[in-house]
Amino acid sequence: MSTTTLHRGFPDTEFRARTEAAQTLMASLDLAGMLLTSESEVRYFTGFQTLFWQSPTRSWFLFIPAQGKPIAVIPEIGAELMRQSWLDDVRTWSAPAPDDDGISLLTELLSPLATRGERLGVLKGHETNLRMPLGDWERLVFALPGLQVTDCTGLIQGLRMIKSPLEINKLRHICAIGSAAFAAVPEFVTLGMPLEDVFREFRRTAIALGADDAPYVVGAADQGGYADVISPPSRRPLCAGDIMMMDTGCTWDGYYCDFDRNWAIAKTSDDARHAYDVLWRATEAGIEAARPGNTCRDLFLAMSSVIAELDDSGGDIGRLGHGLGMQLTEQPSHAAFDTTEIKENMVLTIEPSLSYGNGLMMVHEENIVVGSSTTELLSLRAAQELPVIQF
Amino acid sequence: MSTTTLHRGFPDTEFRARTEAAQTLMASLDLAGMLLTSESEVRYFTGFQTLFWQSPTRSWFLFIPAQGKPIAVIPEIGAELMRQSWLDDVRTWSAPAPDDDGISLLTELLSPLATRGERLGVLKGHETNLRMPLGDWERLVFALPGLQVTDCTGLIQGLRMIKSPLEINKLRHICAIGSAAFAAVPEFVTLGMPLEDVFREFRRTAIALGADDAPYVVGAADQGGYADVISPPSRRPLCAGDIMMMDTGCTWDGYYCDFDRNWAIAKTSDDARHAYDVLWRATEAGIEAARPGNTCRDLFLAMSSVIAELDDSGGDIGRLGHGLGMQLTEQPSHAAFDTTEIKENMVLTIEPSLSYGNGLMMVHEENIVVGSSTTELLSLRAAQELPVIQF
Repeated sequence: MSTTTLHRGFPDTEFRARTEAAQTLMASLDLAGMLLTSESEVRYFTGFQTLFWQSPTRSWFLFIPAQGKPIAVIPEIGAELMRQSWLDDVRTWSAPAPDDDGISLLTELLSPLATRGERLGVLKGHETNLRMPLGDWERLVFALPGLQVTDCTGLIQGLRMIKSPLEINKLRHICAIGSAAFAAVPEFVTLGMPLEDVFREFRRTAIALGADDAPYVVGAADQGGYADVISPPSRRPLCAGDIMMMDTGCTWDGYYCDFDRNWAIAKTSDDARHAYDVLWRATEAGIEAARPGNTCRDLFLAMSSVIAELDDSGGDIGRLGHGLGMQLTEQPSHAAFDTTEIKENMVLTIEPSLSYGNGLMMVHEENIVVGSSTTELLSLRAAQELPVIQF
Repeated sequence: MSTTTLHRGFPDTEFRARTEAAQTLMASLDLAGMLLTSESEVRYFTGFQTLFWQSPTRSWFLFIPAQGKPIAVIPEIGAELMRQSWLDDVRTWSAPAPDDDGISLLTELLSPLATRGERLGVLKGHETNLRMPLGDWERLVFALPGLQVTDCTGLIQGLRMIKSPLEINKLRHICAIGSAAFAAVPEFVTLGMPLEDVFREFRRTAIALGADDAPYVVGAADQGGYADVISPPSRRPLCAGDIMMMDTGCTWDGYYCDFDRNWAIAKTSDDARHAYDVLWRATEAGIEAARPGNTCRDLFLAMSSVIAELDDSGGDIGRLGHGLGMQLTEQPSHAAFDTTEIKENMVLTIEPSLSYGNGLMMVHEENIVVGSSTTELLSLRAAQELPVIQF
């Protein structure tokens, strides 16, 4: 679990390859450039990695031209770090500057495109976010009449869905750390331990095992099962007969794992065992269906047909897994509406869920990488039967 | 440092008071409603707290009407948690649904306003972000001709800048945890320890001391001083003669501390000691100036005049502190451009920085709450002289 066996960051060749792949697609869509504002996209093309995005104060911009290297337009505070990247052109302003937070720099950069009436790609679609004040965006567009703003969500998400071997190495590493952290849970959990303290100890364990952070730790525990998977933990003590679930997104070098585990506390019930068995087999069906040529819809249907043994409500989570990478959840979605074709080197979560009993729910999740003929599990496969923690 | 002495969450009266204060201001601006999309704003008016915001997949909406309780329009996965809040009207859809992620629900909700040509407040200003796909926003506005979309940034930020006593309790608690974590650093740091491992141990310590998480841990260490404050930590081992800085945002119940500490490793230099002394006195001047009636500009100038003893460059950080609360950084900014009046119960960071030597920089930071006549330090004041960690 040493963190020194892998290199942080990527060689410049990786960013060049990503940029050139984007530019090939841009040409086919007649885009003269793309303007990106969000953390994952800026990092994808530059390697610029900082926790500074947690502050909402400053906007950060990256322009991908039709040819050549990207151009960064960023606050001066990030200049030193960005100049260590493969970029040659880093333009900065002293931010914050509410009257002009990079807008005149962007106007200058984009005005040739506007003058020529060219198309600028911007992320406007599902799962994207314009990370700049809406008023600044409106001001920019107003200053550039003639600019044809075009949605480039499909282009960017299509590229990011397929992971490079170096990205997969990072994902493999953080998933192994997540697996080791889950394996430690039965060792530190005690009867009567408040769930909040279980979460706290899980975070500390994951970080000790090499995670840079464990930003996402959610779950629940209650008698015979749980009813909610997004609430913060309470201080309710663990009791014999509880079913406990923990779901984590841990990070290493900016890449996430995202999977969960279930345990019975001291004893279990037939209902919970049955729900677990159905979900375990639904997961198997999902892994089996995650083959090139199938679609996300196929994957969804393969899991749903097993889940239907117990539950035909469809649940309220809306999908049965998703892509994984620099974000806790990425495209695609394993859902009936998503006909994205599964391709080699997609990293996916397989995440069936079901309702059972009187308003209870159960979730399972594994992380995989799709191969040409075989599927690699990145998470250590959950036990086939609901594990019972004995005290 | 027990986490059981404080209650998580807020009583309904707090959310009612916040909503009524907003509605009073809305009336003065002739707003028929406000549409909010971002985590802090949704939580501010409802108490809805979940890590689920880390996934970009789903949009969450809150409508504040001119009178009465807010109305939530959210993915079904959040329904159970939102229904535990003080709200009566929680409308949901099965998300993700890329073709209609809440847009028809919002259209139905807002169409009476559009029909009457009324004004809808939306956050469009500095430090805000429309957390929904831009394409969905454009579709919504297109579907509601007649709706007068108006920026309500000043209204919302004006409310959030002034903290309630219960908010200040939470901030006091997490700042105390941050202070205790910093106090432990000299105990666990060793010569030769890679900076990455120092950060990792700091996170584990803060969480053990009661932080829910330590999402923001940045800093640097290098011979005689550091040159960058936003990069991730390297594996470079700590050496005698390094100046090490760590800056942290730890959280408890959704509220942040945000302050930093500097140490000399084994030995120090006159230059670093001098820079530290200037910054310490600049911090004193900032704390002294943080009085009701002064402006953020006054606070900035008070610190700048001390910093000018050593450095008149103005630096590249762009401001000398900011507001603090549910976000790592909030309004206002201690900067020459910000004439916001300092008011009682503002929680602020006092964060002078300077350049010295050959491209080095140093930063200091404390967290305070402004009183009517006295200022309360939430962070344990840094040592007056640069502390040297001896081994």
